[in-house]
Amino acid sequence: MKNPPALEQLIAALKVLPGVGPKTAQRMAFHLLQRDKKGADKLARALDKALTQLTHCQRCNTFSETELCPICADEARRQDQLCIVEMPADLMMLEQAKCFEGLYFVLMGRISPLDNIGPKDLNLDKLLPRALDGRVSEVVIATNFTAEGEVTAHMLSELFKDRGLAVTRIARGMPVGGELEYVDLGTLAQAVYERRGVS
Amino acid sequence: MKNPPALEQLIAALKVLPGVGPKTAQRMAFHLLQRDKKGADKLARALDKALTQLTHCQRCNTFSETELCPICADEARRQDQLCIVEMPADLMMLEQAKCFEGLYFVLMGRISPLDNIGPKDLNLDKLLPRALDGRVSEVVIATNFTAEGEVTAHMLSELFKDRGLAVTRIARGMPVGGELEYVDLGTLAQAVYERRGVS
Ligand SMILES: [Zn+2]
Ligand SMILES: [Zn+2]
Repeated sequence: MKNPPALEQLIAALKVLPGVGPKTAQRMAFHLLQRDKKGADKLARALDKALTQLTHCQRCNTFSETELCPICADEARRQDQLCIVEMPADLMMLEQAKCFEGLYFVLMGRISPLDNIGPKDLNLDKLLPRALDGRVSEVVIATNFTAEGEVTAHMLSELFKDRGLAVTRIARGMPVGGELEYVDLGTLAQAVYERRGVS
Repeated sequence: MKNPPALEQLIAALKVLPGVGPKTAQRMAFHLLQRDKKGADKLARALDKALTQLTHCQRCNTFSETELCPICADEARRQDQLCIVEMPADLMMLEQAKCFEGLYFVLMGRISPLDNIGPKDLNLDKLLPRALDGRVSEVVIATNFTAEGEVTAHMLSELFKDRGLAVTRIARGMPVGGELEYVDLGTLAQAVYERRGVS
């Protein structure tokens, strides 16, 4: 006696979600099928739509439905400052803090040996020509102040050394070990204002 | 600056999953879109398939792709014993323990005032005629030994009182507060063998 195939397949499919093991997947499947079929249908539609409509901005690499995201398409922004963040959520925190008028590059990750994520996985082939376009004069590294974020920051500063760009790091106004996404906006803004040169 | 609509909709849709809040939903969405697009597509397909193909067995109420599930369709099983469980996972545990040769009824839940789930939500309109079909002589209550499972067991025993059926409860060989799904099979089998009459 097994679950019917369609149910087994749904449970297996839910396990692709990070942090979801067999028991949680089963609980999720039962919940969707018993108590929220509309939600399940909405989720299926949203997955389809996201897969077909979302791409990466050609300039900053964040998720976008257009070739250029609204920020990169905004000619009023400073073209000489490029802020590098790990994830789109970090970019949005900086935008909400209204502390930076330049443009961004989103790595879509951070160096993480445990997850098998090295420099190759961080879109550096896209970052390098972007930063060396001749208009950017300062690269602001705004990766998290976690161990992984710091390693990533170090790798980035090495990458840009001797390329004729000022390379800065947002100030450690943030708590050590903190993540951009969870900090209050005032502290985050302060950290941007106090960014320092990287030797 | 917001996430593009397709991404916001995916994050919102993921929040229908039990235990998934805004931050987890965002992490799941990023994971699917960056690292597992195949998994995301598989999940969308599995949701569609489950929603269109899964129904409830007409006799025992468990999830099934056919009108009668394989157990209810199996004429070799004892027709005089009906075991009532909370969820399909519980039924499968009992089957794996190979301790019961009768048929099942799956409530698809348990009484839970906190979740606003009362007797009306437990498919009793389907259970009662099933148990009173004239062939069933014993109803074996195998809800969990949690507070909610015990309340449900009590409600069921009241329901079947004075209906001319033997009503039994699987033995508390299980740890108090334990759930069927997590117990070892030997203990579970013992609890079935030692089921006792309900006064
Ligand atoms: Zn962009
Ligand atoms: Zn059945």
